[in-house]
Amino acid sequence: MPIFREKAEAIFSRAAFAGDLGIRFRDAGPGWCESVLEIKPKHLQQDGYVHAGVQATIADHTAGGGAGTLAAEGDLVLTVEFKINFLRPALGERLLCRASVLRQGKTLQVAESEVYAERDGIRKMVAKAMVTLALVPAASR
Amino acid sequence: MPIFREKAEAIFSRAAFAGDLGIRFRDAGPGWCESVLEIKPKHLQQDGYVHAGVQATIADHTAGGGAGTLAAEGDLVLTVEFKINFLRPALGERLLCRASVLRQGKTLQVAESEVYAERDGIRKMVAKAMVTLALVPAASR
Amino acid sequence: MPIFREKAEAIFSRAAFAGDLGIRFRDAGPGWCESVLEIKPKHLQQDGYVHAGVQATIADHTAGGGAGTLAAEGDLVLTVEFKINFLRPALGERLLCRASVLRQGKTLQVAESEVYAERDGIRKMVAKAMVTLALVPAASR
Amino acid sequence: MPIFREKAEAIFSRAAFAGDLGIRFRDAGPGWCESVLEIKPKHLQQDGYVHAGVQATIADHTAGGGAGTLAAEGDLVLTVEFKINFLRPALGERLLCRASVLRQGKTLQVAESEVYAERDGIRKMVAKAMVTLALVPAASR
Repeated sequence: MPIFREKAEAIFSRAAFAGDLGIRFRDAGPGWCESVLEIKPKHLQQDGYVHAGVQATIADHTAGGGAGTLAAEGDLVLTVEFKINFLRPALGERLLCRASVLRQGKTLQVAESEVYAERDGIRKMVAKAMVTLALVPAASR
Repeated sequence: MPIFREKAEAIFSRAAFAGDLGIRFRDAGPGWCESVLEIKPKHLQQDGYVHAGVQATIADHTAGGGAGTLAAEGDLVLTVEFKINFLRPALGERLLCRASVLRQGKTLQVAESEVYAERDGIRKMVAKAMVTLALVPAASR
Repeated sequence: MPIFREKAEAIFSRAAFAGDLGIRFRDAGPGWCESVLEIKPKHLQQDGYVHAGVQATIADHTAGGGAGTLAAEGDLVLTVEFKINFLRPALGERLLCRASVLRQGKTLQVAESEVYAERDGIRKMVAKAMVTLALVPAASR
Repeated sequence: MPIFREKAEAIFSRAAFAGDLGIRFRDAGPGWCESVLEIKPKHLQQDGYVHAGVQATIADHTAGGGAGTLAAEGDLVLTVEFKINFLRPALGERLLCRASVLRQGKTLQVAESEVYAERDGIRKMVAKAMVTLALVPAASR
């Protein structure tokens, strides 16, 4: 589904902060998106785990990718709010994230994002987020 | 109150990710902490605003600083979960954050963080977060 | 400010569930609202504290009252989502709630609600919520 | 699995507020719980939909039931915080809720609750919550 992938990918390639962090687009389809991040020392907090802010950023940004697949051409996709629970310390070689849209409205979307840490080939869910996003038509800006 | 400042400052100086982002400790006292970040192009998202992940990171990390002022020597301060509302697009030269502990329990603390963007000397609240943190005694690790 | 009071009060008098629970309108002004509930045995959970659902309901409904003061005539005020932290066990004779609008947008509002329990004349904050509300114009229904 | 059912059921039968609202235990197993509520006029808000507080209460309480299945005999199960998104207006004859524990820790559990409205035999998800719960050992009270 090239058009969904294209829309989600644009949200990754155009966002300086996602790129600076090392969050890379992986795949997308109607209402979902996946991303990956190779864990580097710079991503850690004071106790050697991946910082909550890194996990929150990949969760939020991938939700934006998922919502973006359902947005009209030129719409802004903006995060209204999100909530994230950290389920276990995040350790390993990489983070993977999958976001799925739970509810598509005219102006609001609700998505959930699951963040996994992969360590020695074993994948564990380390965080889960619920994200509310607004679609702002290009025309109204 | 040098001991409170010292405890909060340690949470900033030892966290690679906060340093990499450019979040700097500003001040702290019993149950509160303040921080600052100079906005750079790398902090932006696809539409030129400060990325939600940057705002979430400063909100979370500064809450950790505030909670840390009340922690015992050697305790780990870990974020259990947080929730953040983005109130308006974040634009300007710098972000400022002030976190205050609402409730100090034996093992859990609840803090709230207000994030401000400063532009041409005018400061506006751009995000507000509520953060639940766990204090993990050094001995139990 | 009779018009603000009137708008908020209507949200209380017309909501069957708020009435059934015993939540009563107390006061309101531009962007804020206060309410009160006399604690009865029916409001408790399995351990004798006020049920989290009662606290959540007064927090949500009073936020709706606060948002309603800023809504246009005939607008629906709907809760999009909320988040609530329970700060200490809720015990006493009554709950009081004060909600304040943090951000008024064209279609979305963000409010925060503080819930207090009053016991022997002493008032303690027992819960705090952040609430996102949508204003739906009567015409668009 | 009678012991899991028994533990969850106790959380329903002993909670005055859940009973007063009409929330009934339905089924439970290790880490999950289901409940049901027949929608009555008293459950509605000012526009004829099921009040957000009713949906929040069933989501929270059923999460408590799910967490309770994994608690030790005599442990208190207390809600630390929750977040709920309302996905569409809740209309119909009954609400159904299913809660699942995402993460079981020694002192904290994280559960998610899905709330469905059933109307003319068709079931739609109307709300989704994430709930953080604390297990407080009977001995420590």
